[in-house]
Amino acid sequence: MRYSQLLIPTVKEVPADAEIISHQLMIRAGYIRKLASGTYTYLLLGWRSLRKIMNIVREEMDATGAQEISMPILQPIELWQQTGRETAYGPTMCKFEDRHGRMNALAPTAEEVVTSLVASEINSYKQLPINLYQITTKFRDEFRPRFGVLRSREFIMKDAYSFHVDPEGLEETYMVMYETYRRIFKRCGLKYVIVEAETGEMGGSGSHQFTIPCENGEDVIVYTEDGSYAANIEKADVDALPAPTAPADAPAPEEVHTPKVGSIEAVCEFLDTSPKEMIKTLIYTAADDSTVACLIRGDHELNPEKLTQILGQGAELAEESSVQSITGASVGFAGPVGLDKKVATLLIDHAVAALPVGVAGANKTDHHIKNIVPGRDFPIAGENISVVDIRNAVESDTHDGKKLLFKRGIEVGQVFKLGTKYTKALGATVIDESGKSTPCLMGCYGIGINRILASAIELGNDKNGCILPVSIAPFEVEVVQLNNDKPAVAAEAERIYKELADSGVDVLFDDRDARPGVKFKDSDLIGIPVRVVVGERGLKEGNVELKRRTDDKAINVPAAQIVSKVGEILAEMKSFL
Amino acid sequence: MRYSQLLIPTVKEVPADAEIISHQLMIRAGYIRKLASGTYTYLLLGWRSLRKIMNIVREEMDATGAQEISMPILQPIELWQQTGRETAYGPTMCKFEDRHGRMNALAPTAEEVVTSLVASEINSYKQLPINLYQITTKFRDEFRPRFGVLRSREFIMKDAYSFHVDPEGLEETYMVMYETYRRIFKRCGLKYVIVEAETGEMGGSGSHQFTIPCENGEDVIVYTEDGSYAANIEKADVDALPAPTAPADAPAPEEVHTPKVGSIEAVCEFLDTSPKEMIKTLIYTAADDSTVACLIRGDHELNPEKLTQILGQGAELAEESSVQSITGASVGFAGPVGLDKKVATLLIDHAVAALPVGVAGANKTDHHIKNIVPGRDFPIAGENISVVDIRNAVESDTHDGKKLLFKRGIEVGQVFKLGTKYTKALGATVIDESGKSTPCLMGCYGIGINRILASAIELGNDKNGCILPVSIAPFEVEVVQLNNDKPAVAAEAERIYKELADSGVDVLFDDRDARPGVKFKDSDLIGIPVRVVVGERGLKEGNVELKRRTDDKAINVPAAQIVSKVGEILAEMKSFL
Repeated sequence: MRYSQLLIPTVKEVPADAEIISHQLMIRAGYIRKLASGTYTYLLLGWRSLRKIMNIVREEMDATGAQEISMPILQPIELWQQTGRETAYGPTMCKFEDRHGRMNALAPTAEEVVTSLVASEINSYKQLPINLYQITTKFRDEFRPRFGVLRSREFIMKDAYSFHVDPEGLEETYMVMYETYRRIFKRCGLKYVIVEAETGEMGGSGSHQFTIPCENGEDVIVYTEDGSYAANIEKADVDALPAPTAPADAPAPEEVHTPKVGSIEAVCEFLDTSPKEMIKTLIYTAADDSTVACLIRGDHELNPEKLTQILGQGAELAEESSVQSITGASVGFAGPVGLDKKVATLLIDHAVAALPVGVAGANKTDHHIKNIVPGRDFPIAGENISVVDIRNAVESDTHDGKKLLFKRGIEVGQVFKLGTKYTKALGATVIDESGKSTPCLMGCYGIGINRILASAIELGNDKNGCILPVSIAPFEVEVVQLNNDKPAVAAEAERIYKELADSGVDVLFDDRDARPGVKFKDSDLIGIPVRVVVGERGLKEGNVELKRRTDDKAINVPAAQIVSKVGEILAEMKSFL
Repeated sequence: MRYSQLLIPTVKEVPADAEIISHQLMIRAGYIRKLASGTYTYLLLGWRSLRKIMNIVREEMDATGAQEISMPILQPIELWQQTGRETAYGPTMCKFEDRHGRMNALAPTAEEVVTSLVASEINSYKQLPINLYQITTKFRDEFRPRFGVLRSREFIMKDAYSFHVDPEGLEETYMVMYETYRRIFKRCGLKYVIVEAETGEMGGSGSHQFTIPCENGEDVIVYTEDGSYAANIEKADVDALPAPTAPADAPAPEEVHTPKVGSIEAVCEFLDTSPKEMIKTLIYTAADDSTVACLIRGDHELNPEKLTQILGQGAELAEESSVQSITGASVGFAGPVGLDKKVATLLIDHAVAALPVGVAGANKTDHHIKNIVPGRDFPIAGENISVVDIRNAVESDTHDGKKLLFKRGIEVGQVFKLGTKYTKALGATVIDESGKSTPCLMGCYGIGINRILASAIELGNDKNGCILPVSIAPFEVEVVQLNNDKPAVAAEAERIYKELADSGVDVLFDDRDARPGVKFKDSDLIGIPVRVVVGERGLKEGNVELKRRTDDKAINVPAAQIVSKVGEILAEMKSFL
């Protein structure tokens, strides 16, 4: 394609809201333009990259026997009510009420729709396994869209859904998808890690997340140095801390007046203690309306995914009024003493159980208690009491005795074993081999198409612009013509452009009437992997210049050999993918 | 692909709401499934067809130098307010209010978004012409979705937008698109007609519509037998009727009491006259709030597109209260006598001006006037009076003296010269060669992707099922294996399937363990163009059966030659497209 006819609006300025490098470069290189908060138009370059990514995903999915379909964006809300997920999504779901008053979700994902399809169309185990996928636009009404296309309100997701009559069948397809995802991300030229993940509001029994480690990622992955363990922060299990060694002569608990001092920081300052010695008491209301109290150390964070997993149901922080009526005190002064008798469930984090002595709220407004010894001043065992791992891993934690390390990353894909959560709710049952009706087992497998492009730019860039893998770059090769006023140069550039195009190379031809400096700057910025420069000076010696985007310097190549030389370089680049 | 592993849910029953053959067959052949009113899931077969159609469209658009981009589905409503089209679309526009209270349109089309993009990114005539297109999902909240995917709430549209500095540039691209559309529809195997079309709420100065003639179409096209004229019903100009020959002794007008007789039919029965002698008086309120009265014959229908064109603005039927205050009578009793003094504009259809004598409302509730002579009893010329073509063409009309014929059809594409309607409203101006700032001229070009598939089935079907053109059929060839219990047959079927696939043929392999009757029925129903049957009986003679979907009988072909024979047939089929 001829650059002079294309809309590739490169710019120097970075918009104020572009905080991370991929967002900045996608704007600067003319890949995308913002339409409104969290929505982007993909221009020629960006869209070409996305289409290449979609084609890789499609080829690999098709190769596994998965079938591409296309489900509507408008989804009847009733389906979401049947699985209880209308509530689970909350305001993040985009909803549209039609002229007849019917409410529709704008697809955030499609478990409900595909399961209702399977419920209608499949009734025998003989029709299983089946794996249906689509590559379509999805919506999330993010409270604060950010990081460009990484957290946007509208994005393209490949979502696949498999159905099975038995766990072995699910496991088999799950592993096929797992391996397929490895191939997809490798072909896209991405360095990824695979970590164990929580299933979150998706439900189900197992999940892996494919993450691109990079400093601007929103996700945190946790791993051991020897590679024997890796999980995302929501999932990462930590070892229990050593058993407490409370001094036998620990002083008796002592109530202290802490007027209007409700936060951990304020209490620590007031009582001259540290968050590590504080016991934080959090009151939750579970989906079944029962009350759950969680005790964690003041320097730790509760992990909602672990809480959901332990409870077997979702839970929300209790309303202020409800906390008051349970503890008898304002929020900020809840504490563990006597609490096991006031709540349905008391969950104590390992690290709290391991505290020799601590400080906590007194269940009395404006008061705390010092010198609390777990097990002495409140029970750490009992019918409704469990000591559990209920917090996010932190730097000093271990897993199986090995120190945990932390890394940020971008989640680009996730695979889930969903079990029967959706098939039971929506009646997707089959007759099994013995003639019995049984709900299908289900797996689901997502890939964020736009995130692959953004991740590739997070990983591949320098001060001059994007450096994209050849498989997903908008073009494979750019031919830059210099000296537009010289017909002989123009003719040779044209010949090289056409021969490359005719040989099947995906080539951009910078035929613009612009200064060489402008062309080189744009070329570096948009990040095409291979560049051929055709200029008067080189042609005098019969040469053109050849440079990989990653090379520091160009080399001279006889113009007559450039087409085959480019072919060799591309073949070499592709051999690594 | 192996049929046994695919979801192709063919059914015998036709759902009650499937009124037309394409809708019935798309359900029966397992191409689509309805999710809710006006929304459909495309299963494997339907989606493969749509993807082939999209690829044809993409190839042809790319060949013209048009650039594929992708604009968001969520569009800020403010853009629609700037062009006044929020009101024009009314309740047909799907709207979504986000969590921050911002209103979004779900893209029904994208003139506003693309024009605002061009306004930001293009500022010189040197960057023009440019033609940007996308193939994306669009939404219309139809009051009554019907005819399957022909009038659905969610559909895929290819929409292209070109921008120019002068009318010659627009004309050139318009003609390129016109010719490209001819190629696209030909490659899709569709017989189409091109008719002049009104621009409707799109605005602009010229338009052509690409229509597939078929009896189930919702559109009406009007043409002369010699092919010298063709237009859609909204556009079709009709000749004025011969000048009136009112008898010199026409009796004086006579007011008659017609209690509660307001409709044309009721008046005709009451006064023993015919609709052809009635003068219907319709009161409109134009967008600028002025009042417009239209006189048309009782047997004719007002054409809103022509009215908009004549007024140079939109107009809605006036409120009942407004009609009463203008005419002094209830709705149903408005009439032409004295009306020119009560409205801003009086538009008289040619056919009314040509009436020798007629019957009309008396501008007095429950009264009509007989023996009204146009020109005698009300003026047919004057400052605010025009005699115009303001109605739909009917069977007896002529154009340039030639009899008009009528045909139903499905609109699959339309091209528009939009002029400056959008570029002025949204500030898409460029500096022209003389250094002056000028609004861009704009064209737009749409194709209904889903309608192409439905039209193809409307045109191609028989009592057994679909008959699809090879270019857009889900597969080119189906290999049907009989006698699944015979290993030698299975091996030969497998060989043929693999060799066809390896030679680049898009082939479906019916390897199911099912009776031959079931396989043949499904094969006819899904409509793959070429069928190869591999069975024990034929193989004994070394033969397989070959049959085009359009053939009555199969022929025997030596199994060893079938791959090359299929290649020949496919090449022949493609040569017509």
